[in-house]
Amino acid sequence: MTENHPVKPRAGHTNLDPHLDRYAARTAGMTASEIRALFAVASRPEVVSLAGGMPNLAALPLNSLSTQVSEIITEEGLVALQYGSAHGIPTLRDQICEIMALEGISAHPDDIVVTVGSQMGLDMVTRIFCDPGDVVIAEGPSYVGALGSFTAYQAKVIHVAMDEHGLVPETLREALAQAKKNKLRVKFLYTIPNFHNPAGVTLAVERRAEILEICREYGILVVEDNPYGLLGFNGQVYPALRSTDPDNVVYLGSFSKTFASGLRVGWVLAPHAVREKLVLAAESATLCPPTLNQIIVSRYLSTHDWKGQIKNFQENYRERRDAILNALDNYMPPGCSWTKPDGGFYVWMTMPEGVDTKAMLPRAVTARVAYASGTGFYADGFGSRQLRLSYCYPTPERITEGVRRLASVLEAEMDLVRTFGSVTPRSISGPESPSPDTA
Amino acid sequence: MTENHPVKPRAGHTNLDPHLDRYAARTAGMTASEIRALFAVASRPEVVSLAGGMPNLAALPLNSLSTQVSEIITEEGLVALQYGSAHGIPTLRDQICEIMALEGISAHPDDIVVTVGSQMGLDMVTRIFCDPGDVVIAEGPSYVGALGSFTAYQAKVIHVAMDEHGLVPETLREALAQAKKNKLRVKFLYTIPNFHNPAGVTLAVERRAEILEICREYGILVVEDNPYGLLGFNGQVYPALRSTDPDNVVYLGSFSKTFASGLRVGWVLAPHAVREKLVLAAESATLCPPTLNQIIVSRYLSTHDWKGQIKNFQENYRERRDAILNALDNYMPPGCSWTKPDGGFYVWMTMPEGVDTKAMLPRAVTARVAYASGTGFYADGFGSRQLRLSYCYPTPERITEGVRRLASVLEAEMDLVRTFGSVTPRSISGPESPSPDTA
Repeated sequence: MTENHPVKPRAGHTNLDPHLDRYAARTAGMTASEIRALFAVASRPEVVSLAGGMPNLAALPLNSLSTQVSEIITEEGLVALQYGSAHGIPTLRDQICEIMALEGISAHPDDIVVTVGSQMGLDMVTRIFCDPGDVVIAEGPSYVGALGSFTAYQAKVIHVAMDEHGLVPETLREALAQAKKNKLRVKFLYTIPNFHNPAGVTLAVERRAEILEICREYGILVVEDNPYGLLGFNGQVYPALRSTDPDNVVYLGSFSKTFASGLRVGWVLAPHAVREKLVLAAESATLCPPTLNQIIVSRYLSTHDWKGQIKNFQENYRERRDAILNALDNYMPPGCSWTKPDGGFYVWMTMPEGVDTKAMLPRAVTARVAYASGTGFYADGFGSRQLRLSYCYPTPERITEGVRRLASVLEAEMDLVRTFGSVTPRSISGPESPSPDTA
Repeated sequence: MTENHPVKPRAGHTNLDPHLDRYAARTAGMTASEIRALFAVASRPEVVSLAGGMPNLAALPLNSLSTQVSEIITEEGLVALQYGSAHGIPTLRDQICEIMALEGISAHPDDIVVTVGSQMGLDMVTRIFCDPGDVVIAEGPSYVGALGSFTAYQAKVIHVAMDEHGLVPETLREALAQAKKNKLRVKFLYTIPNFHNPAGVTLAVERRAEILEICREYGILVVEDNPYGLLGFNGQVYPALRSTDPDNVVYLGSFSKTFASGLRVGWVLAPHAVREKLVLAAESATLCPPTLNQIIVSRYLSTHDWKGQIKNFQENYRERRDAILNALDNYMPPGCSWTKPDGGFYVWMTMPEGVDTKAMLPRAVTARVAYASGTGFYADGFGSRQLRLSYCYPTPERITEGVRRLASVLEAEMDLVRTFGSVTPRSISGPESPSPDTA
């Protein structure tokens, strides 16, 4: 044991983590997300959880899936249980091309890399593009898991504003101009164009070409994350950004919301040269995605009416979306605003001035309702007045009851604010990054 | 499109990768491994592949596995197909503790993180400990996938020598003293104590305490990678390094060699504070490991005679080890030497002076035998006279035939060397890092 690196706390010292001086610099940004702390709470049956983003799988055809998986093991178990390539199995990559064609994407199966959920896709894309200090542009708010990956590679995030029609092109142009002036190395725009997590808004079709054009003008890539694209409540499917700009867009897809999240099967579609780097990165990360899981998805796609199943999911989530919007209309006090999603899982809500959603959360949980407070969806401390409500998992009745409870908590909170001013000191006022709550 | 970042090659220019100036610095070290290029060759039936490390799964009880997996989907499909925690399912973590107890490890299930194969464990450990320029000490040769992860995080590798009894403690001490003198930031020793990949040797039990002591003395962690530990051919199980030094060893385990590699289920056992960081890192990498795969492994462990199955694997691999050692004795010309594994998958071979195994490989493939040339297992260019033979997958008859073919190729190569001197210019002479071929 050297004096520089005490392996164990010395007598009389309290060193909770004896490895503290050994960690990489990137670990400084790794903190447990507020949402993660909520999962334990969400699992208590008396709490209506509007916090998590777990898909509702009850509509899946478990019996026929069971038979099918059993056949896979019997018929091709020696392949399904064996290592595969980091690239992913060819049959599944062919099928993924057919799925993406629904969004106007024309792609070669070779340019797809199958990943362990699209979270791994995000992580691999960040791995190959971001040095510490590089900048990623992302909507404000943005997906918490993406922010986690950017942090892991010490990339900085600059948020750009959304309104009810999604990312605002002018704010993107301003942010890029400013970054250029400041000589920042911007690597890509990370965007969720459809049924945004957590904002619940969709990028207007007429804005898409402009956003692609701005990114080309400033020489940055677009990373298009599209897990919810097929979950439009009117069956509408928007053209992917990738469909018109194959050379400058990296597209992330997932079976987590259209089939089964627990299989962890997602993919990246990338320009050819980028795809080669992604395969090498994926090899060093997991060697290969699980073979069995890929075969399960592939067989499901080739033998089940997967489009019909997606229709079921759409109806299921539409019913829940209706329930939450009705309940919000009925119960929420004046001064709140929220987005009105036409697909996906989420409503983004802005509270009246003075309410701090993080501080309010323990009181909400006491009242048996949980949500995700807004700051987790920003890299810059903004979001203290915002929160995300997920309507994907509970029944419509539970959703209604959850919103009713939340409204009471909020009324009490607002009473406090009226009496004492802001409940919690606001240490960070946040950038002028309007939340997409103006719908 | 700005002038600085041409997105497409301009007319008259040939730019094979328009994204070339966008990649992170770490991608410079990402190159396709020699072994990867071989997989395509290995799949041609006329070639005897002694190159890959695919476990032989033929002995698995596919029919009962099939029934079991089918039951999992029917009985708990809504859990198996749903997101889980990044930590891994509790039942499986309990069972992993029982497995590790066979090697003398006493651990709490909370300190285990389930990973997507132990490759992901390696990647996560490197992620939380290694800044660019940090140093990892590893045996020379070392596992090619580990070298890939270290490269991905821009860590430098310093190799230390092995002999027939594994890592040589004195060389470890010398390397650490030298690194300290050079003010290098050494983060950990990465070691495969049992049935080493690719060296085929095992760390003598009487060296283990000394190695732990040296690492403590220099204030570095030990990362113990043990995928083959239960595959000793005489049923012997060596005490894990972790068993005597729980505070300073991070242990990596895997079901890829004792059950099914295609499920991608491995684990990390780490000191408590480190484990928390690992869970956060894993969340940003894949959100969670596949739930279904964890439940499959857990049920297999609780209902099958998994120890009996491991005995089958041992017998299977012992028979193949006998075949390869016999064939090497019978066919190889004088001047070659090789290790004599008593467990695991690999024989490490050193060729006579003047033979370059990488240059010889195409000629070997033409003669319908494949191996993994030695340089891939070193970070420093050493290994040009070495190669790895994997006896895990082909039948004993095919192994014998493969070695016979390799011997003819080598004879022809040696004829060339005798006539013309070294066949290939030796640009790198390598460090004085003896290969463990002296057994």
